[in-house]
Amino acid sequence: MTRFVLCAGTTRTAQIDEISAAGADPELMVHTPSADSEILTYGRPVRSPVVPVSPTGCPTPAVVTRAVVERLGLDTTVVDAGLAEPTGAPTVTVGAHSGGDIRERDPVPSAPGAFAAARQFGRQLPDDELFLAETVPGGTTTALGVLTALGEADVLGPDDEVVDGAVSSSLPENPLELKREVVAEALGSSALSPGDAAGEPTVALRRAGDPALAVVAGLAAGALETDTAVTLAGGTQLVAAAACLRHGGYGGSLSLATTSFVAEDSSIDLDRAASELDLDLTVTDPGFTDDHPAMAAYNAGEAKEGVGMGGALALADRAAVPMAEIREGIREVYDRLLAEADREVPAP
Amino acid sequence: MTRFVLCAGTTRTAQIDEISAAGADPELMVHTPSADSEILTYGRPVRSPVVPVSPTGCPTPAVVTRAVVERLGLDTTVVDAGLAEPTGAPTVTVGAHSGGDIRERDPVPSAPGAFAAARQFGRQLPDDELFLAETVPGGTTTALGVLTALGEADVLGPDDEVVDGAVSSSLPENPLELKREVVAEALGSSALSPGDAAGEPTVALRRAGDPALAVVAGLAAGALETDTAVTLAGGTQLVAAAACLRHGGYGGSLSLATTSFVAEDSSIDLDRAASELDLDLTVTDPGFTDDHPAMAAYNAGEAKEGVGMGGALALADRAAVPMAEIREGIREVYDRLLAEADREVPAP
Repeated sequence: MTRFVLCAGTTRTAQIDEISAAGADPELMVHTPSADSEILTYGRPVRSPVVPVSPTGCPTPAVVTRAVVERLGLDTTVVDAGLAEPTGAPTVTVGAHSGGDIRERDPVPSAPGAFAAARQFGRQLPDDELFLAETVPGGTTTALGVLTALGEADVLGPDDEVVDGAVSSSLPENPLELKREVVAEALGSSALSPGDAAGEPTVALRRAGDPALAVVAGLAAGALETDTAVTLAGGTQLVAAAACLRHGGYGGSLSLATTSFVAEDSSIDLDRAASELDLDLTVTDPGFTDDHPAMAAYNAGEAKEGVGMGGALALADRAAVPMAEIREGIREVYDRLLAEADREVPAP
Repeated sequence: MTRFVLCAGTTRTAQIDEISAAGADPELMVHTPSADSEILTYGRPVRSPVVPVSPTGCPTPAVVTRAVVERLGLDTTVVDAGLAEPTGAPTVTVGAHSGGDIRERDPVPSAPGAFAAARQFGRQLPDDELFLAETVPGGTTTALGVLTALGEADVLGPDDEVVDGAVSSSLPENPLELKREVVAEALGSSALSPGDAAGEPTVALRRAGDPALAVVAGLAAGALETDTAVTLAGGTQLVAAAACLRHGGYGGSLSLATTSFVAEDSSIDLDRAASELDLDLTVTDPGFTDDHPAMAAYNAGEAKEGVGMGGALALADRAAVPMAEIREGIREVYDRLLAEADREVPAP
């Protein structure tokens, strides 16, 4: 059996202006992981006050993942990897707390404990295979922080020249210079130079990362120790999780499943990272067409990944479900979310 | 769609000697709801140190419910209705805390808040139908406490004579006299006479109940307000939840689905309660045979109900799954639990 595990957390790094599109504005963004967890679980928000959209209205990739979950009847589990707002989704507790802005000295003190608890949980899960996903606004910046602390900043570099760190973005125009500045400040405030946390992933996660990445890495570590197959379901944030695993001495087989939108992002070279970190790479193209507003936004480079979208698409593909059927499911989930946003629930 | 919701909580009332069989001993019993939640979710314990069994070794009814969940592919959700020990199952938070011994003055201060939050959650769930179940050792005693405070102590009375309160039991020999003494003391310490909380279910739940019952009642209330069909999946504890709903002014259609073991319990008259509280009663007989140790224990009057066993069996029946197939599933889950108990997981 396959279990799809969503690690939902927050980092105040997302509040930095212009750094993330995982919410309509920084104030609403803090609800995104809680709402994504509900959409994954129930197909719509239950407690969260928002349907997460980007500033331009592009809906959360949770819509895509939910469409696949409904078609395949997947088992899903949400882990509280540092939520900052209530969620109506059932969550597993691993002691993760909402992460601070990585420019602070010790932004994720819960990272080592959450990694350890997630690892134990990953060891005990009865499944043959785990797909591990994230929802954490600001997560590509913290991913760059972790990669830099590990000395792997250029693992995603689009060419062989020194590029001073690269990750993807939920924005069509990747604010990579801003991310590099934030990461430089993060390492500075922790008195770390790039590479100083090589071989010590929990140091990198604690000083320059976010709690969701710590939980993903911990779950994967526990699963690999007990011969459970692991697919990292996501983009460059999951590459950072893979780097944590390799630096933690986990040498076994490891897959990364992401979307064509990440693979086609010219600010990174995913094949290079897959080769450097020895990852089996699966890229799935959902075949979005511009006649639907959500799909058109993805085609224009918004969102690209999140909530395990690429992993979910890979599972649909493996189950031989035609992408046309998944697109139909996406339209259904999207319409339901719109209808829900319009529905007035009389106050009790 | 149907959702099966397990409300998992604790009350220190269960620590009273000889009052409950929902655990091998009072010290282990506090783990039962956490372990039941894991068995329902994953088919085996994940974090909990025990497979819940009665003092004589009768396994938890979670085994039966899980067997049905596996056959039908049911959507399940666990609500933390006052757990006292960690669980690896994902849980929804409604602000419930572990209940005190009802002989104390204010044993469940979280009952009104948990009822309100569960009601909101019940209003927001997108399902057409909810099956609501409980796992709370000591729960029949707190159910008697609630029924007595509401003035409904005899609603389950086996005859028309005044019987001074009746509920079923997880023990083959129902310690009903002991329960009545505990309830009398509970009402005394809250300065309540029987019936003093009539029309005020949250008072009854707070002063003489348990947090799981408060959450079940709250969920049902919210669901009924939004025209979601509700089946109370369980025995006399769920009759107490029904009494809370009727006393709270919820007059609509309400179903109770339980096992033949509860229906055949001579210490109660379920038909009378169904008639007094206007419940559509479904009783399902799983056809247990004495050639399996777990089934033989149930046939001998152990456990009888719990973790929504009767509701799960009713769903299997409605889906036209033969009981022989469910019994085969029970054997599988049981064998897996035994194998798991024997398996040595190397320490990390």
